[in-house]
Amino acid sequence: MQFVSVDQLALFISKCFIAVGISKREAQVVAGLMAESDLNGSDGHGVFRLPQYIDRIQSDGINLKPNIRIIEDKGAMAVVDGDNALGHLVMHHATEIAINRAVEHGVSWIGVRHSNHAGPAALYAKMPLKKDMIGIYVAVGSANHLPPWGGTELLLSTNPIAVAIPALEEQPIVLDMATTVAAYGKIKTAAQRGESIPEGWMIDGEGNPLTDPAKSHEGFLLPIGGPKGYGLSLVFGLLAGTLNGAAFGKNVVDFNADSTSFTNTGQFIVALSVESFGNLKLFKKNVDEVIRSMRASPKLPGFDAIRVPGERSFQTKCQREQSGIPIPDELFEVLNTLADNLKIEPLRL
Amino acid sequence: MQFVSVDQLALFISKCFIAVGISKREAQVVAGLMAESDLNGSDGHGVFRLPQYIDRIQSDGINLKPNIRIIEDKGAMAVVDGDNALGHLVMHHATEIAINRAVEHGVSWIGVRHSNHAGPAALYAKMPLKKDMIGIYVAVGSANHLPPWGGTELLLSTNPIAVAIPALEEQPIVLDMATTVAAYGKIKTAAQRGESIPEGWMIDGEGNPLTDPAKSHEGFLLPIGGPKGYGLSLVFGLLAGTLNGAAFGKNVVDFNADSTSFTNTGQFIVALSVESFGNLKLFKKNVDEVIRSMRASPKLPGFDAIRVPGERSFQTKCQREQSGIPIPDELFEVLNTLADNLKIEPLRL
Repeated sequence: MQFVSVDQLALFISKCFIAVGISKREAQVVAGLMAESDLNGSDGHGVFRLPQYIDRIQSDGINLKPNIRIIEDKGAMAVVDGDNALGHLVMHHATEIAINRAVEHGVSWIGVRHSNHAGPAALYAKMPLKKDMIGIYVAVGSANHLPPWGGTELLLSTNPIAVAIPALEEQPIVLDMATTVAAYGKIKTAAQRGESIPEGWMIDGEGNPLTDPAKSHEGFLLPIGGPKGYGLSLVFGLLAGTLNGAAFGKNVVDFNADSTSFTNTGQFIVALSVESFGNLKLFKKNVDEVIRSMRASPKLPGFDAIRVPGERSFQTKCQREQSGIPIPDELFEVLNTLADNLKIEPLRL
Repeated sequence: MQFVSVDQLALFISKCFIAVGISKREAQVVAGLMAESDLNGSDGHGVFRLPQYIDRIQSDGINLKPNIRIIEDKGAMAVVDGDNALGHLVMHHATEIAINRAVEHGVSWIGVRHSNHAGPAALYAKMPLKKDMIGIYVAVGSANHLPPWGGTELLLSTNPIAVAIPALEEQPIVLDMATTVAAYGKIKTAAQRGESIPEGWMIDGEGNPLTDPAKSHEGFLLPIGGPKGYGLSLVFGLLAGTLNGAAFGKNVVDFNADSTSFTNTGQFIVALSVESFGNLKLFKKNVDEVIRSMRASPKLPGFDAIRVPGERSFQTKCQREQSGIPIPDELFEVLNTLADNLKIEPLRL
């Protein structure tokens, strides 16, 4: 395991992007968001994805000179065409629009088409917090791993939602969740380690529990709450994808398997200006009270603490600000091979 | 089992409300929505609730002359104070505002405070469909049955969400779900029938599966996807309750146990004007295609069909429009005792 600071990591990522033709300003935006993902503990959505992004750029699967622009506009809502830019750029731009629009309208809903994989959902839901706004982000996942309830065809993705809510003295509540019981990354990790996975994560083609992750290609992820999670994944896909003219269902491109086809990824971000709803400080104080009342509940046997969403991620962030972001040796090698190929300096420790 | 038409049922309900002092116009609005709930198969949220609503009115727990009004307003968003009216009246009013505002702004978000139990979530999410809009409704549930994840104190409700999305030739998609694996009503029904409940619905105070519904008071509902459903219930409660200055968490009044305390129920409704996002007909056609692709998936053993959310409810509606709404004998007696007490004519068959 190697440890790097968030600044070192962001600098390395931006140099990689610049080396393949992204402008310096845009490379810095994307690198900053990716390094922030790692800082917050979203290890599967930060620098881990860099080789894949670079591969897609080198395969002409990403537009290096995008014209990210508003194509529908009613003030409180707009649709942004990402022009097949890196997803982080599109969503960063869309979220800035959402924040600005919510100042005037109290609420804003910005849909996105022709975007790409944009990292962890929490990144964008958290951006409105800086203006004391609530953020809600939903994305069409970048590969289908979920069949409809009762079916076997992979027509749905883990379509995640993130919601960020400001507090006063407490840290904000930041929910970031897939609509499946387990994210696909966890299955892959278990397979690498030769561990079995719990019943309830996956089923096989006959509907029986699948607990050997090495056989994951023979089965399907299970949605949370059975038909409920299927329903959530379906409506999230229609709202983040179809409504914006983006891909959903059969049309979703598996970006893990295909680096050239345009993904037409869809996402949306909602910003709510808390002070439009009433007294800002009172709201934040009430959120503190809700957080504290949850924590103060008597505990079930086996639980050391009751947490609110975002708490673990915040603890990880504090820890990594002190001791650096851990980079597994294998990933470290992959990144420095990438640096070699791009003729840039390796990742510094 | 007795069968009544939706019109007979609505007429009966409105007479009950008029008898306890609700204006004729308002009684008709609430009765229409309640009878529609029964027509659509939401048996636990329609006329079944009438005796409880009447009891609350007679216990001065409802304001009979409410001034339902906007107290915060930025155009695309507003907060409505329900003035402790019947929840159906408040939400009907708020949803009309949401629809009107979405015409101009493309999106609208109307929060509600000082409301009450308003029946099934789908009722309000479906209202925007008549204007080719998408509706999203979230409510703070009217009794806490859920502890935070890892805890044992009942601080959360089943806080449901409903999302309604228009289609072209297909019926609209209508998701209506609690954030718990099972609704509390299903536990009660199993207890009445002396049946056990499946593992995964409830746990006891030690965290072990609880399968005897007669012991439900010793245990807790389980959220969908464990900590994920807890997170959803929490953020839905903050958005529908706290943000609007309505009750959430410790402050929620159990309206089953207490008919006098003001509940200060919170809800919100979002309307999205589809044509603001692009071509309306194309969108609806794409929704049709998504629905058909889900249905066409190969099936797992044991499944007779793959459904989309709202399909069962629509089938129930068609059936009940033909053969009437079934009223169990026990409920039929309760309703006619109520009619006796209110000195109105009994429910006609």
